[in-house]
Amino acid sequence: MRGKLIVFEGVEGCGKTTQLRRSQQWLVDSGWQALLQTKDCLQQIAVTREPGGTELGLKVRQLLLEPSTAEAIESRAELLLYAADRAQHVDGYLHPYLLQGALILCDRYTDSTIAYQGYGRGIDLNLIAQLNHIATNGLESDLTLWLDLDAATGLARTQRRGAADRIEQADLSFHQRVQQGFTALAQQHPQRIARIDASLREAEVAQQIQTVLEQHFAEWYGVERPKDEG
Amino acid sequence: MRGKLIVFEGVEGCGKTTQLRRSQQWLVDSGWQALLQTKDCLQQIAVTREPGGTELGLKVRQLLLEPSTAEAIESRAELLLYAADRAQHVDGYLHPYLLQGALILCDRYTDSTIAYQGYGRGIDLNLIAQLNHIATNGLESDLTLWLDLDAATGLARTQRRGAADRIEQADLSFHQRVQQGFTALAQQHPQRIARIDASLREAEVAQQIQTVLEQHFAEWYGVERPKDEG
Repeated sequence: MRGKLIVFEGVEGCGKTTQLRRSQQWLVDSGWQALLQTKDCLQQIAVTREPGGTELGLKVRQLLLEPSTAEAIESRAELLLYAADRAQHVDGYLHPYLLQGALILCDRYTDSTIAYQGYGRGIDLNLIAQLNHIATNGLESDLTLWLDLDAATGLARTQRRGAADRIEQADLSFHQRVQQGFTALAQQHPQRIARIDASLREAEVAQQIQTVLEQHFAEWYGVERPKDEG
Repeated sequence: MRGKLIVFEGVEGCGKTTQLRRSQQWLVDSGWQALLQTKDCLQQIAVTREPGGTELGLKVRQLLLEPSTAEAIESRAELLLYAADRAQHVDGYLHPYLLQGALILCDRYTDSTIAYQGYGRGIDLNLIAQLNHIATNGLESDLTLWLDLDAATGLARTQRRGAADRIEQADLSFHQRVQQGFTALAQQHPQRIARIDASLREAEVAQQIQTVLEQHFAEWYGVERPKDEG
């Protein structure tokens, strides 16, 4: 039994953190977690994020997201900090949990680096691919849920939420380039990346995600929807 | 006028930090700094170090050197943190100062990563070369002063100095592999790396360094020893 890595991706304000939590709760409430555990398809459900999925990563996340700094963070330095966070996360968390048979729900992974640093900041995409490969040691997600939302709508949502961090403060055109990045990635990797319409109401977005997850459970484990939900 | 990057390298306790400060003082006292400024060969002398040569780098240095952490820092994460520190240092400090015509004295640079992470921790040397290239954007030192000292002697010196950090706490065989790394690098790059016998007394080590620096000033600038020293 090897676990599965499910990643939630999208622009600021797309709702991925909320939806990740809802998915976690739904896996319990729907009976899916118990069913998959009974059938020895998974050992546990683990929830994590990048950056900041480890103790070291939390410190790195602070460096990256704190708005106050007397010096600008250089683009390549930023890219390497994300890669350091990711290497620690892969070797110290994702890889061991996958070996134990965990189903992991992860808030952001390699596609965010391509979208934010590559499309957003204009760093060479080959360099990013090289660093993603170094940081992950080749570990890819089994499924990426891309919460597709117009960048302006997402930004407006985060602004209603209050204090913005350094990334959220970047201008709209930056976030539009990020959104273009996710769009291009979804076209390049249709097998791995499932598009979710994140412009709908929260419950409708959750329903789409549940449908995609159930399709993948059937495919991965040959297991159908738990009876008490049918 | 483009500046020059002079790097001090060697195992723990080899005296590089002390000798860097002595060199800085000697450049003033000997009249070299004034002479080179008068002849427009350099604009200023700058002193820095890796890790920790920038505000961001100082925070990264804290992450790397603090002995207390509940989780082990994974090898690839450590390597990427050093690379992030270096990228910030190159883009935010070294490159701008060199463009201004500074003579920079730097405590550790790329060779330390090869010696510590490559030879010491056994990380793939090609991966390190790849990351050094990404982090430096191709910027090499103009002269590297390698303070050659037996690893056991160096460690004994640092132990007399008091509280050891996480790197200094590693065992003797680790530091011996690091020393082998510096030895191999000096053989591979005889033009760039000058070997200094660091087993001698502090004043004698300083004298060797001054001789090498004067040879390079003659070569770089065509300028001979200041008269008041001759």
